[in-house]
Amino acid sequence: MSQVLLSNALILSMNENREMFVNGDILITDDRITAIGAVAPHDLTPDVEMVDCTDSIIIPGLINTHVHLCQQLGRGLGDDVNLLTWLHERTWPYELAMTEEDVEISALACCAELIRSGVTCFAEPGGQHVDAMGRAVTKAGIRGILARSTMDCGEGIPEDRQETTDQALDIQLDLIKRWNGAENDRIRCWFGLRTIFNNSDELIVRTKALADKLHVGIHMHVAEIKEEVEFVRETRGATTVEHLAKLGALGPNLLAVHTVWLTEHEISLFAEYDVKVSHNPGAAMRVLGFAPVPEMLKQDICVTIATDGAPCNNRMDMLDELYLTALIHKGRTLDPTTVPAETILEMATVNGARALLWDDQIGSLSVGKKADLAIIKPSLMPGSVPVHDPVSSLVYSMHSTNVTHTMCDGQWLMKDKKIMTFDENSLLKEAQQHADAIRERAGIKLTPRFPVIHVR
Amino acid sequence: MSQVLLSNALILSMNENREMFVNGDILITDDRITAIGAVAPHDLTPDVEMVDCTDSIIIPGLINTHVHLCQQLGRGLGDDVNLLTWLHERTWPYELAMTEEDVEISALACCAELIRSGVTCFAEPGGQHVDAMGRAVTKAGIRGILARSTMDCGEGIPEDRQETTDQALDIQLDLIKRWNGAENDRIRCWFGLRTIFNNSDELIVRTKALADKLHVGIHMHVAEIKEEVEFVRETRGATTVEHLAKLGALGPNLLAVHTVWLTEHEISLFAEYDVKVSHNPGAAMRVLGFAPVPEMLKQDICVTIATDGAPCNNRMDMLDELYLTALIHKGRTLDPTTVPAETILEMATVNGARALLWDDQIGSLSVGKKADLAIIKPSLMPGSVPVHDPVSSLVYSMHSTNVTHTMCDGQWLMKDKKIMTFDENSLLKEAQQHADAIRERAGIKLTPRFPVIHVR
Repeated sequence: MSQVLLSNALILSMNENREMFVNGDILITDDRITAIGAVAPHDLTPDVEMVDCTDSIIIPGLINTHVHLCQQLGRGLGDDVNLLTWLHERTWPYELAMTEEDVEISALACCAELIRSGVTCFAEPGGQHVDAMGRAVTKAGIRGILARSTMDCGEGIPEDRQETTDQALDIQLDLIKRWNGAENDRIRCWFGLRTIFNNSDELIVRTKALADKLHVGIHMHVAEIKEEVEFVRETRGATTVEHLAKLGALGPNLLAVHTVWLTEHEISLFAEYDVKVSHNPGAAMRVLGFAPVPEMLKQDICVTIATDGAPCNNRMDMLDELYLTALIHKGRTLDPTTVPAETILEMATVNGARALLWDDQIGSLSVGKKADLAIIKPSLMPGSVPVHDPVSSLVYSMHSTNVTHTMCDGQWLMKDKKIMTFDENSLLKEAQQHADAIRERAGIKLTPRFPVIHVR
Repeated sequence: MSQVLLSNALILSMNENREMFVNGDILITDDRITAIGAVAPHDLTPDVEMVDCTDSIIIPGLINTHVHLCQQLGRGLGDDVNLLTWLHERTWPYELAMTEEDVEISALACCAELIRSGVTCFAEPGGQHVDAMGRAVTKAGIRGILARSTMDCGEGIPEDRQETTDQALDIQLDLIKRWNGAENDRIRCWFGLRTIFNNSDELIVRTKALADKLHVGIHMHVAEIKEEVEFVRETRGATTVEHLAKLGALGPNLLAVHTVWLTEHEISLFAEYDVKVSHNPGAAMRVLGFAPVPEMLKQDICVTIATDGAPCNNRMDMLDELYLTALIHKGRTLDPTTVPAETILEMATVNGARALLWDDQIGSLSVGKKADLAIIKPSLMPGSVPVHDPVSSLVYSMHSTNVTHTMCDGQWLMKDKKIMTFDENSLLKEAQQHADAIRERAGIKLTPRFPVIHVR
């Protein structure tokens, strides 16, 4: 039995009553929280690890509900270009040129960034080489849900990656068998549906039936770009969400990502079927448009926050996404009271856990739950001093650089700003080398933004 | 004569040809850049300070054209409330309760945040206690333009702060005499016009005449909120910029801040008179609405970037503002190619210098210019690895935590992440204490966002 005592912190528990404990303690025994509030000395074992958290804030580990681990090495490849260039000349060639080893390094580099921003759990929408991602997540110690980017029809799929509906489902069943519940149930595996552009109705219907049977979720990009609405209307005679409803594919285990181009009717369908939503403000602002988040929250839809992938955002930093979520809906509606800080924090913790069907174990700091948390120190940086209101300060002022510790499943992932589960420095060197090599192999040429003078 | 050699860096010079030097050096002699590119050993004095900048990027110090130094201690006081509450129950009582000592601490804390985000020059729109701000800027070593928040009519001015047009101008003339050109011309002082709500036509006209005569600029909030347009139409029979044109107040020495609610005609007036614009994306998103930045850039208007004050944004972090500027106009226009990274960097350097009437001395790294620069290290953090394109990486991925050194006027303000000009830790402690005390004195009560349990 191993114990960690975090003492004398401001604890934003996000428990059922949302209690904030002032000068409170948290006792962790193995992978669970076993006490919160005032911890009695007689509950401590002699070799308990004591961490003084005076002047720090403890929050549940943040939950990033949509992040492409395998795109981390492509960060910055798609900046300031239109969508077709982004897809055909940058992202697709890059991903096709990646080896399984590249994907593992990409995933681990992404985990480093997530851990530094206080994230302890993520959902991956799928890429190739899911096993490589699984190995990286195993090593990083972070909690996550893997999936495979699944396509069985439509345009843009390279010839050697084309597969039938049966093949697409079989490969995923195999992955779920291997990864769902792995590593003390720290890793889970879901079904992926890429987008309705590349998914047949048969695949959608059979995916939903299998997901229900296996008690897993479905991770799908929905109503992402304007052209999707037109495409689905032309090919299926309805908008995406309406069509999914007709197919019987809406339900509490569907995680709909982006959801920018929704009709009012589609929002009410989400509410009716308890569909979960992943809002990606950075990516949305950069290319997609603004999702109707206040409108969805008003209907009690479980809206969560996510970073998307590095070529879309490019910051895989959840604290920045909290800030962006707080900002853009105010600017869009001209109402500075909309989507307030306490709602933002709920979206990134309890809502995240519910969306990932994991709220019995994570999302809040309560006795019996998994010890997934982050410790944040406002006084570290001038950018987060002073604090008048810790909740709004967290959402509006803090950066990853304020996060000092991250713990997942009772294990330190970062301690005093040092990543504990792998050698971050050598990983980052490898990441840059592999990123350059992939770009070369893929034949991607970036025109320098300014004239280059080689001095040496 | 003191020398500093920065060697082997990627230098984004932002000079006339925008040359990027790969593996280049910069030689600084006293307060000036005396060589750039390859520096010959025989040009070095025996006691030259050598800084190896391998794997680092050197940029001109960023220029923040609108930041309220005196509001730093009020960060987070106005979150998630409407404009009237923000003004009457939070910001105004807070500012009224501030002493001259509070303002000095506020200004120094703000300088710390600016220095950490690579800013070497700012423009202050004015507050009370300009001398206190001047003392803080003197100590911080940063370059800046002070002003005084000037109002001679209209609502909302406390009785003991009311003044005539003559008084308002006299006080400013006195400040300009004291501060303009101080500290080796590192500090300058301009005229301030708060907003057209609180400025008489006489004040505007006489301010413009005096600014022209003294070769200084005018810092004014323009077309900030929708209500301003209605107010000016009712009281002056035109929109703000049209009215300023009629008064003869438009010109190259007017810095118009926010400029959210502009008509097409007003944009063309800006172009015609070479009026400079300060775009504040964070504050705009949070409360004001989206300024027509791509539209202004298309007309070759000198648009710059700024943070605004801590109760509005709340991040006084220029790298975040670069990122926001790159994002919001893409989302608003649904064009991912608009306002690209190279334009963003121009806005924050050369445009900033031109807007502050200081482009003969700062804004680019060229021989003869002032040594104002920042050194940035991408490989420090997983959030900025890999780099495929240094310019877009700087704008889209980097954080203040990547900035390792900041130099202004040839003096190190930050070196290896340590602030060199004052004791940052004790300042931050003082800042928190003073911020709490002001809030108490002002009688501002913030309702806790969640129920509070006092454990001890």
